[in-house]
Amino acid sequence: MIPARGYAAPDARSPLTPFQFERRDPGPRDVQLEILYCGVCHTDLHMARNDWSFSPYPLVPGHEIVGRVVRVGRDVKKFQPGDLAGVGTMVDSCRACVDCKDGYEQYCKVRGVLTYGSPEQDGKSFTQGGYSDSVVVDEHFVLKVPTNLDPAAVAPLLCAGITTYSPLRHWKVGPGQKVGVVGLGGLGHLGVKFALALGAHVTVFSHTDRKKQDALRLGAHEVVVSSKPEEMAAKANSLDFILDTVSAAHDVNAYLGLLRRDGHLVLVGFPAKPLEVAPVALLSRRASFSGSGTGGLPETQAMLDFCGKHGIVSDIELIPIQGINDAFDRLEKGDVKYRFVIDAKSLK
Amino acid sequence: MIPARGYAAPDARSPLTPFQFERRDPGPRDVQLEILYCGVCHTDLHMARNDWSFSPYPLVPGHEIVGRVVRVGRDVKKFQPGDLAGVGTMVDSCRACVDCKDGYEQYCKVRGVLTYGSPEQDGKSFTQGGYSDSVVVDEHFVLKVPTNLDPAAVAPLLCAGITTYSPLRHWKVGPGQKVGVVGLGGLGHLGVKFALALGAHVTVFSHTDRKKQDALRLGAHEVVVSSKPEEMAAKANSLDFILDTVSAAHDVNAYLGLLRRDGHLVLVGFPAKPLEVAPVALLSRRASFSGSGTGGLPETQAMLDFCGKHGIVSDIELIPIQGINDAFDRLEKGDVKYRFVIDAKSLK
Repeated sequence: MIPARGYAAPDARSPLTPFQFERRDPGPRDVQLEILYCGVCHTDLHMARNDWSFSPYPLVPGHEIVGRVVRVGRDVKKFQPGDLAGVGTMVDSCRACVDCKDGYEQYCKVRGVLTYGSPEQDGKSFTQGGYSDSVVVDEHFVLKVPTNLDPAAVAPLLCAGITTYSPLRHWKVGPGQKVGVVGLGGLGHLGVKFALALGAHVTVFSHTDRKKQDALRLGAHEVVVSSKPEEMAAKANSLDFILDTVSAAHDVNAYLGLLRRDGHLVLVGFPAKPLEVAPVALLSRRASFSGSGTGGLPETQAMLDFCGKHGIVSDIELIPIQGINDAFDRLEKGDVKYRFVIDAKSLK
Repeated sequence: MIPARGYAAPDARSPLTPFQFERRDPGPRDVQLEILYCGVCHTDLHMARNDWSFSPYPLVPGHEIVGRVVRVGRDVKKFQPGDLAGVGTMVDSCRACVDCKDGYEQYCKVRGVLTYGSPEQDGKSFTQGGYSDSVVVDEHFVLKVPTNLDPAAVAPLLCAGITTYSPLRHWKVGPGQKVGVVGLGGLGHLGVKFALALGAHVTVFSHTDRKKQDALRLGAHEVVVSSKPEEMAAKANSLDFILDTVSAAHDVNAYLGLLRRDGHLVLVGFPAKPLEVAPVALLSRRASFSGSGTGGLPETQAMLDFCGKHGIVSDIELIPIQGINDAFDRLEKGDVKYRFVIDAKSLK
């Protein structure tokens, strides 16, 4: 076994504290990474605080991992020591169901193993995440990271990036299309970058005008303050696609009404409670209200390659692991532009 | 002007009673029909009782009209006296917006004119529907009716038929696909017939087992009693497409969970209140929750042609106009297999 150091939530109410644990020795198909950076996703905060009632403790969060390969199993083909590599939200799945075979491992209903908080291969312990100095993962779930990008700013692409990239590609967003991005946070700011790179006309919807200049700086063509009815009304029946990144309760009908015939609103945030959908909002324009969850391994690699080609990374604020509890507090207030990333050097 | 006789709701609380009114003389592009049959849609009941708060009175309902052409304007090209013809839910639209130009007049946001209860061309009166002996409509909104079908049983195709046919075609339902039809009423029983004719494997979902034999008689491959959790659980993650014909409040999440990855649930019923949608039901399978409203003129004609080719008509119960108030009472209880159709001879 490999000794590992990280920060863990000891229970749902306490701050994260230093934690020593073990990683398995790499098996024939495993890749061992020295973790360099790990993004701080809102999911980490939910899981640390047991908001979804299935967190095991102690819990080491983190599923936006960039690291350096230090050892590979004898059957590993894609990686060799020294490679820059990434790990996202999943580290295993059944590999046999139709979803896995199609490369949509994130929808595996048989045995999806999340990067942290899921039962481990040994059947006894739980997976532990990237707020640590090393990780051992089957090569199928390890991504190649483009070497022309800032590796710290790549880390958030492993969850926030693929979560926004995947629906934009699946629903074929491209030139000539009008795209709305609801919410300008970790997900939203990457959604704007991807939609722009795909050639769409991008309108950012934000509850206040506090982020207006920032949205324009990111390249958005327009900004609508969603709390101003006249600004919303001016966009009625005009959008082809809306990427809804809001995780809080919100009025999706107000956005469905902005879609053209056959438009799509895709939820990538994860509100805790059901959202009310007015039938007329859908029926009057054959609109769809969909949801999309991260992305499978082939598409995550395609997203990283796309980012390498287009120079896309996350806007980040680099922190030492010792600052994680403050970062959680600020994250809860939406006070980050646009993703905290832990510098794993601070664990040494 | 042409004197017309029909049955009208004088207000929101009174039974329908005999009513005399006038139709406009046919203009250059108008077709005058002697009405032979008119289906009784649940919308007629909602509108007669002002359930949606925009009914004008006196109101002659009816938008599933089959009739005989008796006169045509000088520029009419598609019809001549003696032709069998149909009129559905709309009699005019702006004809200039992108939706109209694409043949989706039902989504026109500029000036959609419904067959009854909408402002008339004269800007003063309101359109009156098919619970009457004649109607005058621009030929663009008149359909050719196949002559090999029972014309009384064709009438419900003009609304219930196109409402179920359109989404099945738009979402490309066909051989090898597993389709669920929720609710076996006027819409649902036609949804079953269309899905079968398109080659799909069809499962009917009904709240009780009262309609089980009837669903099988219609050709459904399977029937699931939606109030039995074990029957619902057995269908989890298995369907490609669900046609939801329920107009009452219901739990759509229970059905979203039956969809495979990238499956679609399409609402064609019109529940009065918003429906609660659980984000996880969408996010965990990239499912979509959509709505579809009737169909445009080109597609309605295609549907009628399809019915002629496949011998599809509605199961009906023919009634005289004098029985309309009893029919409304029975419709409210779901006591009809599967559509009342008024025989307009009873108006003579």
